[in-house]
Order: sequence, then structure tokens, then C-alpha cells
Amino acid sequence: MQSLGCDVAALNTVQFSNHTGYKQWTGSRVSAQEITELYQGLKQSYLDDFDMMLSGYVPGAAALEAVGQIGQELKRKAESKPGSFFWVLDPVMGDNGRLYVAPDVVPVYKSLVPHADLVLPNQFEAELLSEVQITDVPSIGRAIQVMHERYGIPHIVITSVSLPHPDHPVSSLSVVGSSMTSGRRARPFKIVFPAIDCYFSGTGDMFAALMVVRMREAVHNGGRAPEQEQEQEQRRGLPLMETASWLSDDSVDAVDLPLARAAEKVLASMHEVLTQTAETMERTVKKAIADAATDADGVGTAAEEKKLHLLKSKASELRLVRHLDSLRFPKVEFRATAL
Amino acid sequence: MQSLGCDVAALNTVQFSNHTGYKQWTGSRVSAQEITELYQGLKQSYLDDFDMMLSGYVPGAAALEAVGQIGQELKRKAESKPGSFFWVLDPVMGDNGRLYVAPDVVPVYKSLVPHADLVLPNQFEAELLSEVQITDVPSIGRAIQVMHERYGIPHIVITSVSLPHPDHPVSSLSVVGSSMTSGRRARPFKIVFPAIDCYFSGTGDMFAALMVVRMREAVHNGGRAPEQEQEQEQRRGLPLMETASWLSDDSVDAVDLPLARAAEKVLASMHEVLTQTAETMERTVKKAIADAATDADGVGTAAEEKKLHLLKSKASELRLVRHLDSLRFPKVEFRATAL
Repeated sequence: MQSLGCDVAALNTVQFSNHTGYKQWTGSRVSAQEITELYQGLKQSYLDDFDMMLSGYVPGAAALEAVGQIGQELKRKAESKPGSFFWVLDPVMGDNGRLYVAPDVVPVYKSLVPHADLVLPNQFEAELLSEVQITDVPSIGRAIQVMHERYGIPHIVITSVSLPHPDHPVSSLSVVGSSMTSGRRARPFKIVFPAIDCYFSGTGDMFAALMVVRMREAVHNGGRAPEQEQEQEQRRGLPLMETASWLSDDSVDAVDLPLARAAEKVLASMHEVLTQTAETMERTVKKAIADAATDADGVGTAAEEKKLHLLKSKASELRLVRHLDSLRFPKVEFRATAL
Repeated sequence: MQSLGCDVAALNTVQFSNHTGYKQWTGSRVSAQEITELYQGLKQSYLDDFDMMLSGYVPGAAALEAVGQIGQELKRKAESKPGSFFWVLDPVMGDNGRLYVAPDVVPVYKSLVPHADLVLPNQFEAELLSEVQITDVPSIGRAIQVMHERYGIPHIVITSVSLPHPDHPVSSLSVVGSSMTSGRRARPFKIVFPAIDCYFSGTGDMFAALMVVRMREAVHNGGRAPEQEQEQEQRRGLPLMETASWLSDDSVDAVDLPLARAAEKVLASMHEVLTQTAETMERTVKKAIADAATDADGVGTAAEEKKLHLLKSKASELRLVRHLDSLRFPKVEFRATAL
């Protein structure tokens, strides 16, 4: 986010030596009380003038409630100036059918989503929030419609769904997004992109961070190409940045939404960084396996298996800072189409 | 550092709502034990393969010792591969004659400096380390010589000294640096630059972070312009990156040191960012004073004074992410000359 010019106040909810996918880590969580106190500290020194907030991984219910209080307070403070504060909520609960937070975190997220502007669930998290099982294109459409209706959440992007469809290549994934109309009807679009057959870590965080930047940029541009912006503003009367939750008026089609423009750019950055990470990963893992073959511990022992898992975990971390140009100047190849 | 391509593992020694110059803050320090455990966590997952380490503000002696243990262990681990690890130590103790850490932190820094490769004291900290009072050009030369001799510290940069000298404009400051010879003799240079009459916060951290990047870059380039690099390497036989502490051989003059090239680039970035921060600061503070005049609290009350102090504190924070090009592509104007 900083490399794209955002002045970020990071409130760390944990300080761990590494992410939990390594299966071993040290460090500690920050308590709910300390999260609240840090925000009070910002407030008392006039440092709470945020334009946007991104909330991500919070491992416990009490701490999540504390983060939620901050989001709700900033929303309330901005009520008199529509569009002046935008909350992107990544409801980090689990993946592939498995929770990786405490079960009591789920109802807290359900209570917070109505206060957010944009949620970024993966397929599993969308199922938890909507209580719709996602198996195909119609069911993902239903899940989105349920979330708009039940939570009144203006913008939704479901990251990485595998949608069987005659037009999609076998090894493709889709991102499905929607900005609701004034009557809470979904305007769903999809972006299909080639899957890379690798495990990566950090993709959710990267997606969320880039969406913050690109959503604001796309809304500033009115969702269309910059040269059309003026015309559109005249038609609508009010700049989109000054409307509540940056919701495009009902005349805007799904594929013309700022959310679609933002997601296209984010996916372009992601695809470039993932491709480059996969190349390095392959070399690193091959070398680790070759080293293991000559290692004193021997191949196939528990110690070697563990070491390989750790080296693979490291190799799967996204190589962001070595590819800043992919973040800053992504080349959009995959375009939004109707769901 | 990330915007310049460094993959950074940040070990936070505090999580505060804001820096202590605001005179009020919330949050907590990380204990010495947790610092040690975080490093153990990195080690057990093969995540301790660092090329460089930067240590900065650590508020207590025990925590500083824990940070020092990490630096010493990484140095020991790298002993068989000279130049493969480089420790930049910013001995944050105080400024303008005043300590802002606990007094027992001072002897801990004195015990750590012999293990570091580059120290970045300000004038007050250089006086504490050298026990030489710095009042003029000869005394700063003595302070540097004492530090090289007593601590065997290879590289020193004293940031922001006011050196009265007939050739210097009245409102100028200097940075004075030196890389020692094999016989621990100082090779001092200075870079004189115009002072900006403003209080800024974060300058020490910015200087240190940029020195990490620019020192490595300058050493890679052999301290001279890139086109001279090959010639120089042939002459010396070993690339500078593979010599202990990246110490240039005794034939290199002070103004040709990689340290001088690095400091020039860092100062160029600093001067650009400070100039731009000062411009914004002036507008912000003027507006705050105008607002105060119409505020219900009235001018000159304690509440208004406090509010102004807080708004000024915020305005004095360096505007880094809005000026990334100043970090990435600084235009060097102020050159190193002999002290």
C-alpha cells in the first residue's frame, strides 16, 4: 500500500515470527484492550482522520470486536460527509472448508459486515456469511444476492472460486464481484484468470491491500476510462467519491462498475507477482530437495520432511518488494464480463 | 526500505499509537523475552538468512541486550563468509544534550558498538560514545578517531552537526562520516547541506533506513561510478562485498569511500523530502492557528496550546510515501569533501 502512495497507520493485531502456515511460530497476539487503547491514543492526538480502513486477520472474537468498534466509530464520524470514509473488511475465517479462527469469531463477523462498505470473502467465507453452498454459477449468484440483502453490504468480491462452465478453461479460477443497486439487487460480474498450480501464501492479504488502493482510484475515475469521467459526473450531478459507500447509480451495468475496474487491476498485479513467485519457488524447492539428498539427516526422515515443509513455506511467500512495478503498473489482461 | 526493493522482516520493539514527541501516547513495549523468542521463531523455520540488520529505537536496557544478542549471533554465523552480513546500528539514546532512553541503555550500546559494522550517532550520541565534547571541526575528528580506535567500529556517520567554519554558510548543517583503515585510522569526510528551519520527526529513522540500502548499493558499485567498478575490482582482487565489514583498502581516499557515496544519496533524498514536508507543514500549521482563533476554546488557553502542539507534531512527520521518487531517484547536489 505504501508503494502505491498510501500513508498507512498499521495497527498490528499480532506479532508473530512467521505466518501460521509454517505450523510453528513464536510471538503473541495483541489483546482487545490494547487494540482499543491504541485507537484511543490516535484519537486523542488528532491522528484518526482516516479516509479508508482495511481490517484483516484478527485471531479472537474479543479482539475482532475491538477492531469492529473502530470501524463503526469511524463510519459514524463520517456520516455527515458521505463517501469520506470507506471500510474494506476481509472476513478472514478459513479456507477450503476449514476454519482457522476460533468458532466464536464467525458471529462477530456477521454482526460487523452490515457496517462495512466492501467485503472480500473467499468461497468458504462467502458460504459462511450467506449460508448458501457454492457449487456453480447460479449458486454464487444466490450467495451474493443473499449477502447484499441480509447485510446491506454495498460491495462484495469473492476471491478465487472455481466455476465449472463450458466457456472456462479447465485450469482457470474466477473472481466474482458485485456492487448492489439502490434496491439491494446484485450487479454481478466475473473475471476469469488462469490458475497457477502452486500453493502461495499471502494472496488474500495482497488482494485486500491492492483493492483498497484500486477501489479508491477507480471511484475517483468514475469506473470508466479517465477521459469519460467528466461526462459521467455531469450526468450524475455528484462525484462518486461524495456519495455514500461510493455506490454507482442504478444505470451503471455490472461490467462498468468501479469495483470491476479495481478488481481487474488487482488481478493483473496478482497474476504477475504469482507468476514470478512460482518461477523462483520452483528453483528453490528443487534445490532444497537436492540438498536434502546429500544431507546428513537423509531423505524421508521426519526431520527432513519438516525442513522441506518449512523451506517450501518460505518459497511460497509472495515476492512483493522485488516486483514493485507489477504493483504500480499492472498490465490488465483479464477483463470483467457478466456472470 | 521496501520501496527500494528490500525484503524486510520487521521486529517491532514497541507498538505505540504515535511517537513520543507528541508527549502523549498509548500502547506497549515488547519485552526482551519476546524479542528473543521472535528471533528463535525465525531461526527454527530457516527465516534467519539476513544480509543486513538495522537496529534502532529500543527503549530499555534488557530489550536492547536482546536485540544485541541477535546482531551478535548473526555476525558469528557469517564469520566464515566475510561481508555476507552487515549490521547498521543506530544508537538511539537522545538528542541536544538530553537522554530519551533509560540511563542504563548507554553502557549497553557501548558494549554492542564493537560488534556492529556501521554506527549512526547524532552529535550528542557521538559525544556519549566517544566521551569527546564536539564543538568544532577538530573535536569532531577526534571523536571519530576515538570511536574507531576504542570500539573498532569500521564505519561511522555522525548525522546533523553544526560546524562553525569560514567556508560554511551560517544556516548549514553537516554530516560527517569515516571508514577506518586497516590500522584503525579515520578517513573523515563531510557533506555540508542547507538547514531547514523546522522541527521534523522521523529524520533519524529515515537516514538510517536509507543508509542500509545506499551503503549496500555503493559497496556493490565499489564506491565509484559504476563504469569504474571493473577496473577497481581487478586492482583489488576481491569484490568489496566479499571483504569483512565492506572495508575499502587503505589506498582509497575519504571522499572516494562507498560510505561517502551512500551518504550523498541519502542526504539528497532527505533534503527533497524535508523541503516538501516543510511546505505542507507551513500550510497546515497556519490553518491550525487560524482555526484556533475561531474555536470555542479560544486562543492561548491550555487546551488550545495542547491541540496546536499535537497538530504541529503531526505536520512535522516526514511525508515519505507521497514522495517515493525522492527516495528512489534522488538528485545528488551536495558532495562529500575532506573534513
